[in-house]
Amino acid sequence: MAAPYKLTFEEQLRHIIDNKTKPPGALGRLEEIALQIGLIQQITNPAIQHPHIVVFAGDHGIAKTGLVNAYPQEVTAQMVLNFAQGGAAINVFCRQNKLTLKVVDAGVNFDFTSMPVKVINAKIGFGTKNYLNEPAMTIVEAEQAIEKGRSIVRQLAADGCNCIGFGEMGIGNTSSATLLLSAITGLPVVEFTGRGAGLNDDQLQKKIDTLQQVYEKHALNTLGQQPIELLSKVGGFEIAMMAGAYLEAVHLKMIVLVDGFIATSALLVANEIFRLTKQPSAIPGWTTLIDHCIFAHTSQEAGHEKILRHLGVTPLLHLAMRLGEGTGAALAMPMVQAAVNFLNEMASFESAGVSNKE
Amino acid sequence: MAAPYKLTFEEQLRHIIDNKTKPPGALGRLEEIALQIGLIQQITNPAIQHPHIVVFAGDHGIAKTGLVNAYPQEVTAQMVLNFAQGGAAINVFCRQNKLTLKVVDAGVNFDFTSMPVKVINAKIGFGTKNYLNEPAMTIVEAEQAIEKGRSIVRQLAADGCNCIGFGEMGIGNTSSATLLLSAITGLPVVEFTGRGAGLNDDQLQKKIDTLQQVYEKHALNTLGQQPIELLSKVGGFEIAMMAGAYLEAVHLKMIVLVDGFIATSALLVANEIFRLTKQPSAIPGWTTLIDHCIFAHTSQEAGHEKILRHLGVTPLLHLAMRLGEGTGAALAMPMVQAAVNFLNEMASFESAGVSNKE
Repeated sequence: MAAPYKLTFEEQLRHIIDNKTKPPGALGRLEEIALQIGLIQQITNPAIQHPHIVVFAGDHGIAKTGLVNAYPQEVTAQMVLNFAQGGAAINVFCRQNKLTLKVVDAGVNFDFTSMPVKVINAKIGFGTKNYLNEPAMTIVEAEQAIEKGRSIVRQLAADGCNCIGFGEMGIGNTSSATLLLSAITGLPVVEFTGRGAGLNDDQLQKKIDTLQQVYEKHALNTLGQQPIELLSKVGGFEIAMMAGAYLEAVHLKMIVLVDGFIATSALLVANEIFRLTKQPSAIPGWTTLIDHCIFAHTSQEAGHEKILRHLGVTPLLHLAMRLGEGTGAALAMPMVQAAVNFLNEMASFESAGVSNKE
Repeated sequence: MAAPYKLTFEEQLRHIIDNKTKPPGALGRLEEIALQIGLIQQITNPAIQHPHIVVFAGDHGIAKTGLVNAYPQEVTAQMVLNFAQGGAAINVFCRQNKLTLKVVDAGVNFDFTSMPVKVINAKIGFGTKNYLNEPAMTIVEAEQAIEKGRSIVRQLAADGCNCIGFGEMGIGNTSSATLLLSAITGLPVVEFTGRGAGLNDDQLQKKIDTLQQVYEKHALNTLGQQPIELLSKVGGFEIAMMAGAYLEAVHLKMIVLVDGFIATSALLVANEIFRLTKQPSAIPGWTTLIDHCIFAHTSQEAGHEKILRHLGVTPLLHLAMRLGEGTGAALAMPMVQAAVNFLNEMASFESAGVSNKE
């Protein structure tokens, strides 16, 4: 006699979701997210605890040239102070959605230590070098930034956080993101180059030309599978630190929200590092960091939709935003919470006495 | 000497939005919503007060035939009881997003009055007639339903609510919605016919054939601009009541969230009524109810995307949901709140000391 078939954990979860009082699939993307979170936590009644947004800020040597950016470099530090004072968009959305915001100085060209502001000091340097002339950072700096990102997340997890989104601030960082994504995917620089905080047509063309020049100077076509070297050539301190943060968050089976264009570039760098380490994934069957993440929104920065299509993922929100700071992740949080809540709180056909499909 | 140019109220609002610490337009759709709500309330610091979701429930004679529906008619009443007991998706999302939920019996084929449940009794009848054979309701019933919808909203507004979304429950009501939209837009029935709560291919074809027959029987091609007659032929009590609710909510300058396919059909019926009354719009320059509304989400019910495209509107959310109940409206609420919050709480470039674009 054959042993009775036992449902896998995933099948159990699907059964619970399908038996809520709604037609199967009627909650669309929320059902996918509920399943994903159940699988991450390996439990049928998952919970979101102490959710955080961590914003990594860093400056970019290239921004001093004005070749790629609409706003001056000083704006990075000014916005960090704005975050610390609660006046930025990310502050508003974190307050609304009960997310704790942490602001990290990964490498801003400004000394915050003497100021009475709540900024986590993880400074690798006072901005990167101009990669038009030399590597943005050393290999050691890239590794330090990654390790610092990991340790920041490790601490938050130890304090009870199991759901996290990462944001960034850094004038010029869409250029780093473009170069990183171009190297990793093998697609041309022009595919990922966008208007950033607001370049006009002429400025956009100048940005494309500049990044093409950088791409060739550092032979980025040879570095797609060497993420640390790639970071050292054209990365940013905030991007490297965010890459480390992703690695740790996935390792610790946190719920991870991916924000926009720059955040996605950091994730792809992290994914290359993950592949090189050949560690088994925390969740059976999930082979990349991508499987593990919840993509929060599609940014209007032109390259974001392209990289999302390349990855074959569809984010939760499509609000034509292009601000960074983790704002997309913060705004997607109620959708993620809704997925967890319907799984935990909705009645089943049986419990509510509702007739199922004939 | 020419008088100095004075900004219009809309220009003042745009100026405030553009001077928040972000690149102009970087908050995408949220900036549009902030502008829209500022214009509705004619104030630069708008507020959402006592937001509600009102779910109108009603039964449809056609559902007894099983020609158009995947679930039996009893499910309408069973789901109303589920709403009253807090176990449905709309309950979960209203709790999460701090929306007060009201459930209205517009015409369910069940007597709730003897039961200890919180359902507003606005019953026009025990379900509509089967419009395959006769008109769904009388003209008087259609008018009663509209007036009842108006009075329910009037009462909520008097109690301090200024933001409202409408949901529905009614086995068979995608069929009414399809017929109403087809008559109003002049587009063929097949354009708007979808799988409802889950018809298979054969059932879908049977639904299309049935609705085509109904369309011809009642000569709906002649009734597109006669909304009351149209409701009496093929409407539903919950749809007629929701149409009245939209009319009153816009009249009272409330923030109005439009849910999915059936809710949009009720809005278009209301819009035809609004056009016939030739009342001036509450907001200068806004000529239809459509201008006044915030479209919450795109439903996966096939006809919804088509009518949205016909109207030229893009909803806030695209979550592949198809549940009704007002769930899309409830889930969009945090986005609407975020729009109001950034307008009220974000710092300006001046106040935060951030350098603007060079």
